[in-house]
Amino acid sequence: MSLAPEVLEALVRALGPEKVSADRERLEPYGRDESELGLYPPDALVLAAGAEDVRRVFEVASRHRVPVVPVGARSGKSGGTLALRGGIALSLERMDRILEIRAEDLTARVEPGVITGRFQAAVEASGLFYPPDPNSLDLCTLGGNVAENAGGPRALKYGVTREYVLGLEVVLPTGEVLRTGKRSIKGVAGYDLTALFVGSEGTLGVVTGITLKLLPRPRHVATALVCFRSVEDASRAVARVLSEGVIPRCLELLDDVALRACARTSPFRFPEEAGAALLVETDGNDEEQVFAEIARVAEAVAGDAAGEVIVAQNEAQRREIWETRKYLSVNLKALHPRKLSEDVAVPRSRIPEMVAVTREIGRRHGFEVATYGHAGDGNLHANVLFDAEEERPRVEAAVGEVLRAAVDLGGTITGEHGVGLAKRDFLEYEQGAEQVALQRRLKAVFDPLGILNPGKIFPERG
Amino acid sequence: MSLAPEVLEALVRALGPEKVSADRERLEPYGRDESELGLYPPDALVLAAGAEDVRRVFEVASRHRVPVVPVGARSGKSGGTLALRGGIALSLERMDRILEIRAEDLTARVEPGVITGRFQAAVEASGLFYPPDPNSLDLCTLGGNVAENAGGPRALKYGVTREYVLGLEVVLPTGEVLRTGKRSIKGVAGYDLTALFVGSEGTLGVVTGITLKLLPRPRHVATALVCFRSVEDASRAVARVLSEGVIPRCLELLDDVALRACARTSPFRFPEEAGAALLVETDGNDEEQVFAEIARVAEAVAGDAAGEVIVAQNEAQRREIWETRKYLSVNLKALHPRKLSEDVAVPRSRIPEMVAVTREIGRRHGFEVATYGHAGDGNLHANVLFDAEEERPRVEAAVGEVLRAAVDLGGTITGEHGVGLAKRDFLEYEQGAEQVALQRRLKAVFDPLGILNPGKIFPERG
Repeated sequence: MSLAPEVLEALVRALGPEKVSADRERLEPYGRDESELGLYPPDALVLAAGAEDVRRVFEVASRHRVPVVPVGARSGKSGGTLALRGGIALSLERMDRILEIRAEDLTARVEPGVITGRFQAAVEASGLFYPPDPNSLDLCTLGGNVAENAGGPRALKYGVTREYVLGLEVVLPTGEVLRTGKRSIKGVAGYDLTALFVGSEGTLGVVTGITLKLLPRPRHVATALVCFRSVEDASRAVARVLSEGVIPRCLELLDDVALRACARTSPFRFPEEAGAALLVETDGNDEEQVFAEIARVAEAVAGDAAGEVIVAQNEAQRREIWETRKYLSVNLKALHPRKLSEDVAVPRSRIPEMVAVTREIGRRHGFEVATYGHAGDGNLHANVLFDAEEERPRVEAAVGEVLRAAVDLGGTITGEHGVGLAKRDFLEYEQGAEQVALQRRLKAVFDPLGILNPGKIFPERG
Repeated sequence: MSLAPEVLEALVRALGPEKVSADRERLEPYGRDESELGLYPPDALVLAAGAEDVRRVFEVASRHRVPVVPVGARSGKSGGTLALRGGIALSLERMDRILEIRAEDLTARVEPGVITGRFQAAVEASGLFYPPDPNSLDLCTLGGNVAENAGGPRALKYGVTREYVLGLEVVLPTGEVLRTGKRSIKGVAGYDLTALFVGSEGTLGVVTGITLKLLPRPRHVATALVCFRSVEDASRAVARVLSEGVIPRCLELLDDVALRACARTSPFRFPEEAGAALLVETDGNDEEQVFAEIARVAEAVAGDAAGEVIVAQNEAQRREIWETRKYLSVNLKALHPRKLSEDVAVPRSRIPEMVAVTREIGRRHGFEVATYGHAGDGNLHANVLFDAEEERPRVEAAVGEVLRAAVDLGGTITGEHGVGLAKRDFLEYEQGAEQVALQRRLKAVFDPLGILNPGKIFPERG
């Protein structure tokens, strides 16, 4: 695929030459994301500086019926920014200003290209707190987080991105510029368009401004690591913690394969019989109370635990515990050079079943599977480990079974990574043909010509 | 207006005679809600027993192009259930079963006709917690709460209904039955249709089943009442509390007129110079910590307070404090027999301005105004007090000014009551013509014949 020369000329005319590129080498990195789904480079790249630029891109794209794919940091895991049918990659990366942090209203206004981690640092410097913490926070952008409704470990206590988006500025493919939502914390006027755009994976409009809700920053955090004989024991402990009335800010599970990988570099010695571990974190303003809560957690899980409950006594130990989790991905690659990562979610009580079924599917296909993730909210990352690229089709077959199993257990094919290109063939299995058809009709309201990020979320029509 | 006899016959044929009524006396109460917008009785009443009944009603209504208005407890404040153009009132009141409370997953499944207060009691009996607490909770239904995205005092800490709806069963006017959302806590597959239905005021589909998220029940609650010289002082105190890092579960404001009304029956003696009051509540699992938090609040506000901070020492005192707030509406009617209540929301820092502007508008039109509400999240109930029905047109003019002022201050015309019939003429002022037009197009996707709750949310077309 390549663009007709008049399209490129029209883009340059509309936006100026410095914002437009059709240079092959320049385009290549825009053909990739973290999904490992292959290379789909766009035919042109536009680096937008504001809503007006986005509107102009849509004007050109509409006239020439050319696809437009919005792009942030390309750290997505579901292929949402791949230019499946070529066309224009519309990058928001230059729109990276934090416009306002209003401590008195606990709100902020940002452009979509702001890196999430940078925003969190700025907010925390003002004594405030923005909870969503996707693993990629040092790379990913707030616009991307809005598009995917990003989560992270702290979602258990604090919820996902959706809970923090008060309002959006969105440019529709039709050229309309909407300001949805509100600047007040509450508001119910009309349909919740803001919530409809959050998680729509860049298929309904391009977000050019975000108003976010903030919280006061909790002053103290306590972190603990607990080993268990089995995932069943760990899951029982999770239920016990929550029924104690404590909602930790994180409750992360590692299964035995994940634990084995972690053990390679972790400074902690896991007990021999350990078949699972939980990483628990509580937070609040009162140091005593935060430690009292982690102590209550420790007490609640002690009966099920294998070995001692490790409670970090200082910041260095906290970091060590998190690094155990952080280097997991790298350490898994030391076991097997390749992996395909999934992010199903199931009702919390079905976690042991989900882990067991996943393992059984892996075994049947001849792969080791490492499962870890946000046990508190049932969001599991099942990683099928493999050694050679030739095995990929079989890995994909196994992953398909994992996705269907999650749905059969009352769960979903994606807890936080999105459908994108990766899972579009499984959406109907979860939602049924009627609901998918309805969503296609909704998309047509926003994008009547079908030029915005085509081929994503919904299965290709036979 | 009245139904053609064949429509009634078709309903009886489809649903059986015991579920259908066209008896005038029986219909009359269905022509009213808590909005005081007048009497709009339907031409027929259907008492649905399940999704299949709802589907059949739509089948008949589509064939004969008759409006269908879904009805819960008729406790709404914006006229959402009034049968503006006659037709069929489709009542969900008989669908009142709590189907499941799953402690291990912190979820519940209910039918839409379950009374909110009854559900809360059942949930609390299981050691769990469902936070949304609209003032009408002893009357209103969970289906109505979903339709309006109901809030309440505890929304400050716990969020509104939307935050607790995981999934819905919805019957569309086209007869499709959708199961949206998930039973897991997290999930991002496809567009967030669940969020689109929540707060859509019964204009997109009829909810016949609800899956709700629950929390562990906080074991302890502490309540305090503080007086201030002025709303400005009280607002400064609110900002100070939040910047202390404490998020109380309630932070309710009363202005001087509200306070004067309360003083009629309250067991508390308010200081003479009191021009405003805050009702504050903290909660948690550790009694000491909950009281430590309320003490921290008391300390934070002491500098601005007029008189002592009253902290309830036992359950009886807690109840007394809340009754001060609860009987406010009755007590206001003792000042003036009539009132028109609004529920604007503004960014928190604009509360003093909003209260001042509201008062000025009242003064100009010759009315006393009492303002109270959820100061923590900027959601204010401005009550224009008046004496005789003839004054209503002037009251409405004043209220219109209040709504526009809220928008001008960066807020919204409705924080939690919905647009319905009451505020449809102000929606464009807040959102602009393009956004309203887009929402009409969305409605047409769900309801192509325009038979579901016509005339609500959107202004009548010239």
